[in-house]
Amino acid sequence: MVLYECVNVFCKSRREMSDKPAWLKSHGRPWTRDAGRLVYDNPWIRLTEYAAIAPTGQPARYGLVGFKNLAIAILPLHADGTVTLVGQNRFPAGDYSWEIPEGGGALDVDPRESARRELAEETGLEAAELREVLRMQLSNSVTDEQAIGYLALGLTPTRERPAADDTEDLALVRVPFGEALDAALAGHMQDALTVAMLLRSYHMAREGGLSGALARSMLD
Amino acid sequence: MVLYECVNVFCKSRREMSDKPAWLKSHGRPWTRDAGRLVYDNPWIRLTEYAAIAPTGQPARYGLVGFKNLAIAILPLHADGTVTLVGQNRFPAGDYSWEIPEGGGALDVDPRESARRELAEETGLEAAELREVLRMQLSNSVTDEQAIGYLALGLTPTRERPAADDTEDLALVRVPFGEALDAALAGHMQDALTVAMLLRSYHMAREGGLSGALARSMLD
Repeated sequence: MVLYECVNVFCKSRREMSDKPAWLKSHGRPWTRDAGRLVYDNPWIRLTEYAAIAPTGQPARYGLVGFKNLAIAILPLHADGTVTLVGQNRFPAGDYSWEIPEGGGALDVDPRESARRELAEETGLEAAELREVLRMQLSNSVTDEQAIGYLALGLTPTRERPAADDTEDLALVRVPFGEALDAALAGHMQDALTVAMLLRSYHMAREGGLSGALARSMLD
Repeated sequence: MVLYECVNVFCKSRREMSDKPAWLKSHGRPWTRDAGRLVYDNPWIRLTEYAAIAPTGQPARYGLVGFKNLAIAILPLHADGTVTLVGQNRFPAGDYSWEIPEGGGALDVDPRESARRELAEETGLEAAELREVLRMQLSNSVTDEQAIGYLALGLTPTRERPAADDTEDLALVRVPFGEALDAALAGHMQDALTVAMLLRSYHMAREGGLSGALARSMLD
């Protein structure tokens, strides 16, 4: 057990330096693992079971769900402070889920290219500006799934709409940003990337990360 | 699964749960599935492959990672505007990860009880107030993992510290809220629940969901 108390004044001066704070350092020993045994493989995931040694020295069996794609999420934020959302029936929870546009991006493809493709496929929109605003590990005790969140600004309709996935039947809606955020905070939209990207955009609107006119139209 | 309870000040003052906007309705046909074939089972997850029919009518094989626990996340927010974070070596990405306290809560246990246990185990703290502020589906195209985020307020040391998991070697740090949020937005902390809970708390501090003194100490 390591305890590191950060004195208030000291931390603030570090923050102004915009450096990675000293407390973010690593401790202890990493996990170690054998070569693993492949249990399951499909086009999206690969489950492998490893014989592992925990940082405490404790032997363990670890079932790791490896993802074959990056999770790409795009919040289409229109100049009038509205956002475009996508509705679909999701298999895992068996529910209907309203979300920001999302999809898998191949690991060997520029994630910005995947983001533009997903945005066009799911909403028929293209963005003059695509801004990366978030990186997340979605479920980091069991999976290695990595996500990138983009804000899409300067939106116009695409000339041609790429073909959608043949298992997806998508609905679209365009609603005020504040209404989408309220719906997420009330638990009506629970997709993690949707919740986080709406909150991230709220933070940007409050902290000067967006144009004044756009921020005002979002926060009104 | 427990129904969402909106217990925070924001929900009470600004929006009743019955205010669900009309656009949140469902469309189309849900997925259908057969009984499934169990592929893998361990104490944390169960992978099942289903023969399914997509909402478009397209047949598909679906590999679903079912989770045996709720993901419980607790942001310990001290009265001086600092937060307690936990560092650990994570197996899936093979990285060192600073996060808010998190752990699995059995599905048949009150999630608030699981939250209090995790908070005590990982930080040696107990909370006078535990406020549910977030529900998320962490990776809803492949898994059915459900998460609940709690804000822990009125923090004091526990009399007795419960035993930790024998595979966990945890480090602790207490830092100003703004420094933790900055680290998350800079990509130094990427755990999804950590990122979302820090942004959620920022939103509460800005929107009157926390006491004025606490909010000011967080936003200074």
